Amino acid sequence: MRLEAGKVASELAAIGRRFYSRGWVLGTSGNFSAVVSRTPLRLAITASSLPKGTLRASDILQCDGRGRVIAPRGRAKGKPSAETLLHIEVARRRDAGAVLHTHSVWSTILSDAWPSGAGDNVAALAIEGYEMLKGLAGVTSHEHRELVPIVDNDQDMTRLARRVGETLDRHPGAHAFLLRRHGMYTWGATLADAERHVEILEFLFETIGRTQGGPSWR
Amino acid sequence: MRLEAGKVASELAAIGRRFYSRGWVLGTSGNFSAVVSRTPLRLAITASSLPKGTLRASDILQCDGRGRVIAPRGRAKGKPSAETLLHIEVARRRDAGAVLHTHSVWSTILSDAWPSGAGDNVAALAIEGYEMLKGLAGVTSHEHRELVPIVDNDQDMTRLARRVGETLDRHPGAHAFLLRRHGMYTWGATLADAERHVEILEFLFETIGRTQGGPSWR
Amino acid sequence: MRLEAGKVASELAAIGRRFYSRGWVLGTSGNFSAVVSRTPLRLAITASSLPKGTLRASDILQCDGRGRVIAPRGRAKGKPSAETLLHIEVARRRDAGAVLHTHSVWSTILSDAWPSGAGDNVAALAIEGYEMLKGLAGVTSHEHRELVPIVDNDQDMTRLARRVGETLDRHPGAHAFLLRRHGMYTWGATLADAERHVEILEFLFETIGRTQGGPSWR
Amino acid sequence: MRLEAGKVASELAAIGRRFYSRGWVLGTSGNFSAVVSRTPLRLAITASSLPKGTLRASDILQCDGRGRVIAPRGRAKGKPSAETLLHIEVARRRDAGAVLHTHSVWSTILSDAWPSGAGDNVAALAIEGYEMLKGLAGVTSHEHRELVPIVDNDQDMTRLARRVGETLDRHPGAHAFLLRRHGMYTWGATLADAERHVEILEFLFETIGRTQGGPSWR
Repeated sequence: MRLEAGKVASELAAIGRRFYSRGWVLGTSGNFSAVVSRTPLRLAITASSLPKGTLRASDILQCDGRGRVIAPRGRAKGKPSAETLLHIEVARRRDAGAVLHTHSVWSTILSDAWPSGAGDNVAALAIEGYEMLKGLAGVTSHEHRELVPIVDNDQDMTRLARRVGETLDRHPGAHAFLLRRHGMYTWGATLADAERHVEILEFLFETIGRTQGGPSWR
Repeated sequence: MRLEAGKVASELAAIGRRFYSRGWVLGTSGNFSAVVSRTPLRLAITASSLPKGTLRASDILQCDGRGRVIAPRGRAKGKPSAETLLHIEVARRRDAGAVLHTHSVWSTILSDAWPSGAGDNVAALAIEGYEMLKGLAGVTSHEHRELVPIVDNDQDMTRLARRVGETLDRHPGAHAFLLRRHGMYTWGATLADAERHVEILEFLFETIGRTQGGPSWR
Repeated sequence: MRLEAGKVASELAAIGRRFYSRGWVLGTSGNFSAVVSRTPLRLAITASSLPKGTLRASDILQCDGRGRVIAPRGRAKGKPSAETLLHIEVARRRDAGAVLHTHSVWSTILSDAWPSGAGDNVAALAIEGYEMLKGLAGVTSHEHRELVPIVDNDQDMTRLARRVGETLDRHPGAHAFLLRRHGMYTWGATLADAERHVEILEFLFETIGRTQGGPSWR
Repeated sequence: MRLEAGKVASELAAIGRRFYSRGWVLGTSGNFSAVVSRTPLRLAITASSLPKGTLRASDILQCDGRGRVIAPRGRAKGKPSAETLLHIEVARRRDAGAVLHTHSVWSTILSDAWPSGAGDNVAALAIEGYEMLKGLAGVTSHEHRELVPIVDNDQDMTRLARRVGETLDRHPGAHAFLLRRHGMYTWGATLADAERHVEILEFLFETIGRTQGGPSWR
């Protein structure tokens, strides 16, 4: 697989602007990547610390499978997203073509609504019975039960990436995970698939947040 | 009746883009149809599994009264919406000129707020006393009582279409129905009427959801 | 006073499109007027039953002080808003230059949160202590107490207009009133003043609705 | 430091239009400034009482370090924002390059959710554990604890400016403060930093408001 890098960069930038207009990547939150080569692994990924409402193709870098920049361009001066290792972990373990991280109000609220898991376990949000689940790749009925693992947040990216990797292995059917008080990661075979997953999961988080909110959160 | 198919397709696509911007058809949810011929019955209808924010006239197919495609066009490669049979059921039993299915957060929440009906009965949401009801065709006072039946969701489309048909017959005055955890169907004599019904009902669902939400949902 | 009618019509149409995008005049709800002549009284006013998202200057009619159309134009075929008498009542008793009626979710919710007044009294929503109140004409401190009367809805427009007139006289300081389960009327010396009042009051309704919502509504 | 005044004015106007579209500066609320000269202190600042959705560069004035206009231009006829003294206080004590005041629903709600402090103390909203905090200048971990002081509102601008100054001195680490029932002030080394701070804090206010809302407010 080898996608045309300029086209991918334009598409990632357009996704950023769309998500910004929905309020899902305010501040400089959120980061987006797409696999442009599988062997060796090459990711197009948003540069660090950029506002997403004005994202341009020149704000997209390329990095290798260890997160080192191999094609720095534009105003970002070549520093990839601090969370690049998480993108690589997902791209590898899920064979994903695109990885999108959003940071919406409802995903942040839901990521904080269950206690941390004990020991090696992580908490998880269960979503079941919604027709919208059928928009997730491979799901064919609303009776599907989707478990969205919740990983505790961590500023040590190497440690967090390892934890994310373990979580992905333990939840082979999961289409997304939440970072506690930090938002959501989801992915897909293509950028269009990953963007659809974002819309579906953000919809479900809002629906569940408004429906099941207990006395201490709504 | 025989509408100009190209114009209808453009209008359906524009409705899709408007609803998408409101957040009523995220993911690939939602589908829209208009009757282009009554005898024999011909529907212009959105192709299956398309994102609605970029919907174009070429994404609109034509199908006959049994849901078979008779005019496949464009990127959708000729597969009509999986819910085509529901559109046909509504178009026939209500003599509707247009049928619109949205999948908003509030319609999903309200569709889940009443238990299933026993036996042949379906649950129903009662809406009463709101001026906005006057925007529904034939309603002339806010004192109108609108019953919105709630049909349990089902992946068996033949069975679901039959159940929808029965529900429409039992609620001859209903302007819409909800599918449980799945969203709303409404219709009208024209596309403009159906779109107005969507706006009115979505407004009422949000108002009721925020007003009457019990301890377990808001 | 004699405003240029074409310019007023364009401004009313633009206000409609702006309010529609905020979700304050969905369906065909809402209507807007501006005084184009004081003696004799002449109002530019939205034609009846039009969607506001596509409102054009040609959708604006002119009527006299009894609500009779004197300048029918465009697609509306000359039928003025059903609520024209309410606009005239406000224009006369408040010497207003513009009257705007919105129909938002939060104004509808708040209009229903207090019981009807007994006898000649109407219910009222008290708003106090908010800096945003200073945007209302003549208010110079957040310590202002604004009473927003709530008038029961009625399909008899002559009777409702009389009731509105009485309410305005009893609440000479009010900048707006609510119709129960129907939305808000506000006004101003100019269209810009009236539009500012809409924004301020909608903000306050949402703030109060989210803050003070009791167990039975939110 | 000496920024090009025309460019600054254009950027302030564009920020106003963006915030207006998000609903953060409805009515004529909100005001924005940028330091164009440090010695002597010169601020570009929004003129008083203007709607922000149509803000233009010509609506931006220049004032000196005592709030007197030195470059009146355009429709505002030279009257600077009534809250100019607060901007000057922040610009001086924080060495800020830009000061932004928004007036959103959630900041207004949160500003009212804690009682006034006794004596010289002001109330404060504590925000802790959110990844989004890392978007605040100098914050490097979600484990940061941000205290947002809440200052009681006051129409006496000289007294309020003094109170704001004292509050800033007592909370040297604070990136923002709230005025009770009035909204938020935040700032940054540049306009881009200040705008990022607005987005981050508005996100956090909404998240906290929806999460921790007690029985009497949501």
